[in-house]
Order: sequence, then structure tokens, then C-alpha cells
Amino acid sequence: MKLMQLYASMKSDLQAIEDQMAHTVTSDLPILSEASLHLLKAGGKRIRPVFVLLSGKFGDYSLETLKKVAVPLELIHMATLVHDDVIDDADTRRGQLTVKSKWDNRVAMYTGDYIYAKALTVITELDKPRIHQILSGSIVQVCIGEMEQIRDFFNVDQSVRNYLRRIRRKTALLIAISCQLGAIATDAPVKVSNALYRFGYNVGMLFQITDDLLDLCGTEKAIGKPPGSDLRQGNITLPVLYALQDESIKGRLLDEIQLIKESDGQAGSAAAVKLVRSSRGIKDAEQMAERYLTKALKALESLPDIAAKRNLADIARFVAKRSY
Amino acid sequence: MKLMQLYASMKSDLQAIEDQMAHTVTSDLPILSEASLHLLKAGGKRIRPVFVLLSGKFGDYSLETLKKVAVPLELIHMATLVHDDVIDDADTRRGQLTVKSKWDNRVAMYTGDYIYAKALTVITELDKPRIHQILSGSIVQVCIGEMEQIRDFFNVDQSVRNYLRRIRRKTALLIAISCQLGAIATDAPVKVSNALYRFGYNVGMLFQITDDLLDLCGTEKAIGKPPGSDLRQGNITLPVLYALQDESIKGRLLDEIQLIKESDGQAGSAAAVKLVRSSRGIKDAEQMAERYLTKALKALESLPDIAAKRNLADIARFVAKRSY
Repeated sequence: MKLMQLYASMKSDLQAIEDQMAHTVTSDLPILSEASLHLLKAGGKRIRPVFVLLSGKFGDYSLETLKKVAVPLELIHMATLVHDDVIDDADTRRGQLTVKSKWDNRVAMYTGDYIYAKALTVITELDKPRIHQILSGSIVQVCIGEMEQIRDFFNVDQSVRNYLRRIRRKTALLIAISCQLGAIATDAPVKVSNALYRFGYNVGMLFQITDDLLDLCGTEKAIGKPPGSDLRQGNITLPVLYALQDESIKGRLLDEIQLIKESDGQAGSAAAVKLVRSSRGIKDAEQMAERYLTKALKALESLPDIAAKRNLADIARFVAKRSY
Repeated sequence: MKLMQLYASMKSDLQAIEDQMAHTVTSDLPILSEASLHLLKAGGKRIRPVFVLLSGKFGDYSLETLKKVAVPLELIHMATLVHDDVIDDADTRRGQLTVKSKWDNRVAMYTGDYIYAKALTVITELDKPRIHQILSGSIVQVCIGEMEQIRDFFNVDQSVRNYLRRIRRKTALLIAISCQLGAIATDAPVKVSNALYRFGYNVGMLFQITDDLLDLCGTEKAIGKPPGSDLRQGNITLPVLYALQDESIKGRLLDEIQLIKESDGQAGSAAAVKLVRSSRGIKDAEQMAERYLTKALKALESLPDIAAKRNLADIARFVAKRSY
């Protein structure tokens, strides 16, 4: 099934989630509602809700129950984006003005806090302690990942292992628990929710690596921002780390990164991007992505052979190939 | 009983909470542990843990259970302080450098997020959905209160009602639920937990009003910062609102506030403070505080006559009289 068809087949359930998200963030304080709804309208792939819903097909599917998982997970993801924009000093995201740019940093910080707190009011309606324990534990890891990212800015000596641990926390975990909690909320067997967790984790890793590849190889039109923005920010991603293992370009690439660092991100990253593209860094990172795709598909093997299983596999393959 | 004696009698349980707090915020990422422990070491009155413990005396007192309420509530309070310091651009708090000043705003924002998330990992160990629902709902209100405070900066036309609603969200609610959740966690009857909620709510209001009075009437030595810092920040508190009702000084006070506003907080607030002190604003605010004290003591009346009841009353009276 093509991805568009899959989204179309889930349209009414996804719309219910979208409506609930808007309803949840609406408050009696106009600025909070406006800032939150502004973010919602910017859209997104809603990959977490999609995974929650599909994982729910392995248990006693109930949209009412799954909404209480999908809405908070997507809102928590949004809250981290708002806080990231404060930190990154970003003016646009997905082609829209960021909250910190349209309002200010204070509004952005409290909007993030507010969306996060609202997310919890929804999930706490579920009477399953394990769900709350898994969620809060994962959010701690996400926060640690955010902080690690700051710590590792411009650190060209970090290992691939360090990069992988960071994106695990920053991205993969929330996707992993989207799959896991969709299954737990609908009372699927533990074996199933564990397999879905592993699937989500590997797709999450795959997702972040392809994201990092796109930032270097995509066109400005396709990715909605000039390529090399990670490098300008000091975010050293997998293709760059692999490129630095290429002795023939290592020296020049280090010089370019140093230039960006010393200019406080004002220097362009075009030369560095060109060097990485010409190196084995892209191919090596693509191979690593391919390994996560393989692991994701393998995690699905033990699951009952229902349509959702094929849908999840299709999404994983799509993530591996995506060009936007 | 004197307050010092009360703290002394609770010393070992409060120390257990202190230890658990330190243990909870320790992570494998040194910067997060250091920033969090730096905050913990700055100390504080630990009023929320004290209320949780005393309220737990009305049920089946269990330190293990009450720790899981007290630690998260105090940590959540700390997380809001870290975020406030980002917003307020504050360099010191309780005489210590703030996280944003010792590290930077990025560290402060993520440290706040991290402490908050860690707090949730502790409370989610409790298997009582109502506790989680009450907590998440209250945190939403706290966030709204924080945003209202920003919105209302330098708004000299706000009503007393507006001020009261704001401090209810910003301060009183978290104290109210400290009392309520201490009772719920130990299976006290609903009537008891409701009465304790009302007590905590009124003490919380009392606490914030005396805090606002101290900022105007205290000495720099007693309050650890120059008086009038609320005004310099644009925070229009109850004594100021009442002073503005005094026609004989209204004009001059408005001019002074306007001066502070136009100077972006750089102008001193000494003249404005002097005007407020000379007005009926102080007495009127003290009367309002007195009314909350009366209501707090009244809320206790229906409770069983145990030592904790007298302790709570003593604390309320102390809060009303405090000079630091």
C-alpha cells in the first residue's frame, strides 16, 4: 500500500486525534491557545499518532483509548520542538514562524511547559500505571538527549556510538513508546508490545539518520531550509562523523567546521556540505540507516499477520527512502 | 509549638525527602546533576514536603508513600523556579547564583524540563490515577499563571480579582494539592483531603500575599534582595494595587511605575516603594492576608484533633507573621 493510501485509510481516526489535540491545547488564556494552535496548524507527519493507531490494531482497538495515548505523545513532541526553537534561536520551522519568533522566548518557554502539562492531563485519564511509568521515564531520556546535543555541539572528536546514543534519546525513544503504548493501552500481549517497541526504536533511529542525511543532501526546496543547517548549529551528525574518518578530506573538513564555530554560525556551511557529500560519509550513513531498516522489519516478524503489520513495514521502508 | 521545634520533630522524615530529591535528580549526565544539585543545595523552606507529611498524618502515615508525593511536588516547584529565572533574567536566588547565570539559558531550560520529568518518574510509582489527574491539572494551572504574570507586567489597570486569580494559579494551587495529595496517598477520607486542600489553598494565598508585602516592606538583608524587585520587574502586586486606589498618591505612583517601565527595569523602584509604604496599600493587603489566615484556620476545624492539626495551624500563623 502506498503511504498516501495508508493515511487516507486512517483519515477519520487521525482527524479525531487532530481535533482532540486542538481541543486539548485550547485554554482560557488567548496567548497560550494562539501560540499552541499556531504550532498545530503548521502540521507535520504525525508519525507518532500513526504508530499508536497501527499498534492499537494488535490489541482491542479503541479509538477513544488510543486517542489518550496518541494526543499526549504528539503534544509532548511538539513541546520539545517549541523548547528547541528557543535554544536554537530558530525563526522558522516547517516554513512557519516559530513561537519564539512570532511572540518571544518567554512565551515559547511557557507555551512548551503548558503543552507538556496539558498532554499529561490527557494521558492520566488512562488507568494503567505502567503507561505513565514508561512515559515519564522516556521523557527524562529525551531531556538528557537534548542536553547531550548541546554538550556535543562542534565536538568533532565524538564517536559514532555517542551520536547513536544521543539520537536514541532525542528521537527514537518517543517513537518506540508510541508503538509500545498503543499496544499496552489496548491490552495486547507483552510479547507484542515489546516487539512493537523494538520496531519503533529501529524506525526512530532510521528516521533520525535519514533526517540528518537530508539536511546534507536535500535541496532547500525539499527540506524547507538551506542544507547544512545542522552544521551551522554545530550539530555533528553521522555522515559528518563518517566523513571525518576519510583521511583525504578530514583536514579540510575540520577547518571548515572550525570556521563555522568561530563565526558563531554566521559563516556558511556550503563548503563543509560539499566536502561531506564528496566523501564516503553519505554512503556509510546510508548503510547504517539500511541496517536499522532491516532490524525494524525483523522486529515485526513475530507479530500476527494482520494488515497493520504490513502497514508498519511499508512506513519503515518509506522512511528509509524519504526525500523530504 | 514553635516552628523550629516542629521542623526538628520532622527532621528525619524531611531528611529522607531531601536525600530522595538529590537521588532523583542525579543523572549520568554531569551537567544535569550539577545544575540540579546546585539548586537543591540552595535550600528553601520545603513548605510543600512539610505539608505533605503533616497531611499524611490524617491517613495511614507511610514515609515511603509520602516521599513519592513530597519529592515530586518540591521538584516541580524547583523546576518552575529554574524556568522563572530564565524569564526574569535573574542572576541570584536565595543568595545563590541561578542556573541560567552559573551556566546559561539553554542549560536552565533543559534542567527545568529534566527536573520536571524526573519528578514524574517518582510520582508515577503510585498506583492512584486520581493523584496523577490532580497533579497534571494543577500544573496546567501553574503554567497559565506564569503566562498571566508575563501578560500582566506593568498593567496598572488590573483588578484585585485578577491579582488573586493569578497568585492562586502561580502559588496557592501547588500548596493546596500538597495537603490534598498527602491525605489521598495515605487513604484519608475524602472529607479530610478536601478540607486539607482548602487549608492549603488559603495558606498558599496568604503565603504569596505576605511574600509580596515583604518585597515592599522588608530590608535587603531580611529578604536577600533589594526591596521593590517585583516592581522593577513589572509585577504589580496587591499592596501596589491598593495603593493605586489612594487618590492622594495615585498620580505620583503611576508616574514612578511608568518610569521603571520605560527604563526597561533599569530605573530604581525606591521612590515607588516609598509611596506604596506611605499609602493604605500595606494595611489593606495585610487585612486581606489576615482574611486568608482566618479561612485557613477555619478549614482545619472539621479535622480530627491530632497533633498535625495544631502543627498546620501553627504554620499558617507563622506564615502570616513571617518577616523573611
